[in-house]
Amino acid sequence: MSGSKCARLQGARLQQLLDSVDSILFDCDGVIWRGDQAVPGAPQVINLLKRHGKRVFFVTNNSTKTRRMYADKMSTLGFDVTEQEVFGTAFCCAAFLQTACGLRGQKVFLMGSQAMRQELEAVGIRQTGVGPDHVSGGPGDWANVPLDPEVKAVVVGFDQDFSYMKLNRAVQYLIQKDCLFVGTNRDTRLPLEGGRAVPGTGCLLQAVETAAQRQAQTVGKPSPFMFECLASQFGVERERCLMVGDRLDTDILLGSNCGLKTLLTLTGVSTLEDVEGHEKSGCEERRKMVPDFYVESIADLLPALQG
Amino acid sequence: MSGSKCARLQGARLQQLLDSVDSILFDCDGVIWRGDQAVPGAPQVINLLKRHGKRVFFVTNNSTKTRRMYADKMSTLGFDVTEQEVFGTAFCCAAFLQTACGLRGQKVFLMGSQAMRQELEAVGIRQTGVGPDHVSGGPGDWANVPLDPEVKAVVVGFDQDFSYMKLNRAVQYLIQKDCLFVGTNRDTRLPLEGGRAVPGTGCLLQAVETAAQRQAQTVGKPSPFMFECLASQFGVERERCLMVGDRLDTDILLGSNCGLKTLLTLTGVSTLEDVEGHEKSGCEERRKMVPDFYVESIADLLPALQG
Repeated sequence: MSGSKCARLQGARLQQLLDSVDSILFDCDGVIWRGDQAVPGAPQVINLLKRHGKRVFFVTNNSTKTRRMYADKMSTLGFDVTEQEVFGTAFCCAAFLQTACGLRGQKVFLMGSQAMRQELEAVGIRQTGVGPDHVSGGPGDWANVPLDPEVKAVVVGFDQDFSYMKLNRAVQYLIQKDCLFVGTNRDTRLPLEGGRAVPGTGCLLQAVETAAQRQAQTVGKPSPFMFECLASQFGVERERCLMVGDRLDTDILLGSNCGLKTLLTLTGVSTLEDVEGHEKSGCEERRKMVPDFYVESIADLLPALQG
Repeated sequence: MSGSKCARLQGARLQQLLDSVDSILFDCDGVIWRGDQAVPGAPQVINLLKRHGKRVFFVTNNSTKTRRMYADKMSTLGFDVTEQEVFGTAFCCAAFLQTACGLRGQKVFLMGSQAMRQELEAVGIRQTGVGPDHVSGGPGDWANVPLDPEVKAVVVGFDQDFSYMKLNRAVQYLIQKDCLFVGTNRDTRLPLEGGRAVPGTGCLLQAVETAAQRQAQTVGKPSPFMFECLASQFGVERERCLMVGDRLDTDILLGSNCGLKTLLTLTGVSTLEDVEGHEKSGCEERRKMVPDFYVESIADLLPALQG
């Protein structure tokens, strides 16, 4: 990677970077944990950063957990974290519906998890749709499926009960031009250990968008909303903020989109070859996915914190 | 539409066109019937064309019926049709797997209808997958879902039992590089009477393609396979063949792709404004969707047949 913009973060450069920031945003899966295991050294890094006076936040596109569920998982893995520091798409989607869409005490058709339902209810937004929706009848019945007249928006997150009937019901709501359309994120795969993967929310959202002939607004990375949500609450300065992630197309792009410093960790999805591909592409959009720095693992930050 | 390539088909021009062709391909929904009603005059047109010695075929992207089911429906509506004249994607998909993919006595993972299962079984291809596939466990279980080692291809048609688990199972098969990937068609909506619509196979196929990071080969219009399948069996000459349909992006494009004469009927999806949009676009791909002729309804062919 000689002559590249993306430099390995170590030695004096590491200390310099840490001195230049007050707030650090971490993606979760592939960065601080993998599956149900903490990345070795990650809890110490997070806990020491806080002890050194840094503000630490966690930003994840996964919509299957509430803030509380994340904080509990992190505590179990040895991270010193409060739920206010966690920004998942379940929580941020509720915040988006409330602040950007102006929903209060209203109802949405939710394709998503019980966790999304809880986060919506916590801000007073009611839902219909969570759980299975079984098929009956034929196309004529599907086009005339009963709709809840109180529904103001269709919300699409990760939904293990996704089905043709739910897709159809979402589309019948979205044919109504004043129905809002919000998705948590566009990640097309949920990567698992051993190179395996299962379909992600992006596939479900794309099916709904294609059938509805409309685009959803999305809340998750790389859309700037997650950062704005956090920054407005905590008064974070962009110039003194670092985004740490394992994916170029979500984490690093979010950082670039928001004017943050960016750090890629190689414990997850993206590789240095991916970085090089973007650098060499000559495409402005792809160059935004080139991080400022990279580390093998966030444990590489330890030397600067243990001194 | 003055100065346009697409002329209204009537009078001498109509007689001329009919004299210049031996074979006529008709799309079904929106052309010869709408829902469960024949387009007024359509049965007479079809029956008279045959009496005048024309060979008539029916080409539909709908994968929910066998040839036999189509022939039965047509007879009930007053059309004089044999099942050998019907080319639906359920039948053509079986033919494609057999001839283009070389499957014989082998097994596929089928997201589709009982009709597709029957057409596959009629050419000796076994399947697994038809019917509901209920979710259990979490992502780790989904990535390790039991796969049938005999499966050689994933086949996606219209599937009212489409679900997250089926999407996931298809993806786990498709991660195997030697697994073939075939879709019936890419229609994103199934239009119904009164301007209503339900999601079409294209939405389901796109979800599978996105999650699998692979493109399917498709059998339906506008892919030339349906015409080739029919032409090779009946010795149809392209230059003396007319394609009649209500959709520019499937029917008319199939005709253009195969070098056939093309006729748009305005009883279905596409309008003269759509034609004009394509004509004026200056885009070569879109100009292929401009038909040679249009009629308000195929009943407009009657004057040339009743003389």
